[in-house]
Amino acid sequence: MSPDIAAVRTAPFLAAAAGEKPSHTPVWFMRQAGRSLPEYRKLREGVPMLDACFDAELVCEITLQPVRRHGVDAAILFSDIVVPLVAAGIGVDIVPGTGPVVAEPVRTAAQVAALPSDAVERLRPVARAIGLLRAELGATPLIGFAGAPFTLASYLIEGGPSRNHEHTKALMHSDKQTWHALLAKLAGIARAFLRLQIEAGVQAVQLFDSWAGALSERDYRELVLPHSTTVLDGLDVPRIHFGVGTSELLPAMREAGADVVGVDWRLPLDEAARRLSGAPVLQGNLDPAVLLADWAVVEAEVRRIHAEGRAAGGHIFNLGHGVLPDTDPAVLSRVVELVHSLEP
Amino acid sequence: MSPDIAAVRTAPFLAAAAGEKPSHTPVWFMRQAGRSLPEYRKLREGVPMLDACFDAELVCEITLQPVRRHGVDAAILFSDIVVPLVAAGIGVDIVPGTGPVVAEPVRTAAQVAALPSDAVERLRPVARAIGLLRAELGATPLIGFAGAPFTLASYLIEGGPSRNHEHTKALMHSDKQTWHALLAKLAGIARAFLRLQIEAGVQAVQLFDSWAGALSERDYRELVLPHSTTVLDGLDVPRIHFGVGTSELLPAMREAGADVVGVDWRLPLDEAARRLSGAPVLQGNLDPAVLLADWAVVEAEVRRIHAEGRAAGGHIFNLGHGVLPDTDPAVLSRVVELVHSLEP
Repeated sequence: MSPDIAAVRTAPFLAAAAGEKPSHTPVWFMRQAGRSLPEYRKLREGVPMLDACFDAELVCEITLQPVRRHGVDAAILFSDIVVPLVAAGIGVDIVPGTGPVVAEPVRTAAQVAALPSDAVERLRPVARAIGLLRAELGATPLIGFAGAPFTLASYLIEGGPSRNHEHTKALMHSDKQTWHALLAKLAGIARAFLRLQIEAGVQAVQLFDSWAGALSERDYRELVLPHSTTVLDGLDVPRIHFGVGTSELLPAMREAGADVVGVDWRLPLDEAARRLSGAPVLQGNLDPAVLLADWAVVEAEVRRIHAEGRAAGGHIFNLGHGVLPDTDPAVLSRVVELVHSLEP
Repeated sequence: MSPDIAAVRTAPFLAAAAGEKPSHTPVWFMRQAGRSLPEYRKLREGVPMLDACFDAELVCEITLQPVRRHGVDAAILFSDIVVPLVAAGIGVDIVPGTGPVVAEPVRTAAQVAALPSDAVERLRPVARAIGLLRAELGATPLIGFAGAPFTLASYLIEGGPSRNHEHTKALMHSDKQTWHALLAKLAGIARAFLRLQIEAGVQAVQLFDSWAGALSERDYRELVLPHSTTVLDGLDVPRIHFGVGTSELLPAMREAGADVVGVDWRLPLDEAARRLSGAPVLQGNLDPAVLLADWAVVEAEVRRIHAEGRAAGGHIFNLGHGVLPDTDPAVLSRVVELVHSLEP
């Protein structure tokens, strides 16, 4: 075993994710690879998002940038939740300022049946990027990720980002057979994407169900949970499961197979731990908007969350959602320094 | 006392709001006055939103349309939460497809101090509309409303609708003095607007804190609750208090002074009642997106929610948020008919 491989196995992030006590509280940031970093914006000049996601060298460099700059405890693969859909040949583009836009919204049984689902061949550059990253990252673990079936389905059905998810909800309730066929297909794509990443060398994965918080627990359990379980079941690295506004869904999201449950800022970590009864490892939960306030405010919030995370049991420090584009990178670096200075 | 006045006092909506048992479960819909109705879209052709809100005859007619068409148990004044801001002389416009847009975002102590706050004179057309409506509505109660200080502040600080409320949160945490000065001013405007409506004849009011669900309970209690209390304290008609995604905030929102607490679809009404311990009257909570599904789905959901509302104690049937523009008005009428047919 090389020294690096030995070191990565005892890295604070992986220790915490395994429910063990780390030497310091690990910290990373959702969307740390991108947006807020000037060196990222420079690299991306003139390069469309999806081109960047399929360029192994660029993926490697962008993924490394926040590790170098902030000293975070884990890297997260630079990618996008629609990457495996694009690789499968589904007509999706990422439009700057809007997000994913689907050429032809998917709303019928025939459209679902016709959806391609084999993405592995075209995902080779992602696997290659992971290989490059493992060589560069040394003792820092690399997190892979995929979008969860519900969130992917919402993009496909609505045709893009949606505030109310109305076509998605109409379909899920009115035509359950088509709904389950679609989610089963997306679960297969997401699982294959995660397995490809694990085989290529990521040491943990995060399933992003960004929009699951739009659902009641009742609907989530019946119409979403079985498919997220398909994605996560039996993967042999730590699995983080995250959504926004999911205070009511945390136990169900853990049941889907999470080793670590992501929590947004609406629920204190100690209260989240009570709802999850037992000792789950929690990830979160600084409000990304707080990073735009004065440092004294940020510091007080980091200290509060760190204390609540200690009370909760296992804790990986993170934001409650992704880094906002206007965030000052220096503040992120200072948060890392502060978290590392606190007793785990 | 005229027969109409006697009848309105025993109307099911007011009985339920007072915690009494109504003859049938009352039902109305947030945003029933507008958007989904073809007769509304026809009336609004070529009339900017804010012009419509200050035209007493138009306000009266638009407010009456859903009462005529659906037979709902209450009318809600056609207006907008920015109307009192506009009346005070604050530079806000409503841009179709976007929402309220503020000419100059308010982010400094000097800007807050310079904000005008006396809106009453220019709100006379609204009072006149209420007078016209009382003459037309007979036994059907009329609900007035205002936007809550936090939600109004978010529009003023962000300059328009915002997904992350980052400037709002940065200001609320970094400069509490300016924050409280702004919210106190907005609370004064909102309270004066509600009092004007009550004096003109509305029989209930709803405070819309549309975006409060973006806050943790901790921040809500410290930075928002005192100002919403200022708005609602001691008003002598039933007060409904509503926000979206507020599962964690319901007790705090009731403490601000609500007789009726609005609940969105994320939390079942019986569970909301447990969290509010005691016997609050609840309003809600059909997911507006469900109205776009097949009738069998809508019917099952209406029956479930009605049963959960009975278990909860007092219940006013409504949606968990506003009617979506694509909703078929015939479905709304059918929901009213169904709710009225069920044992209260």
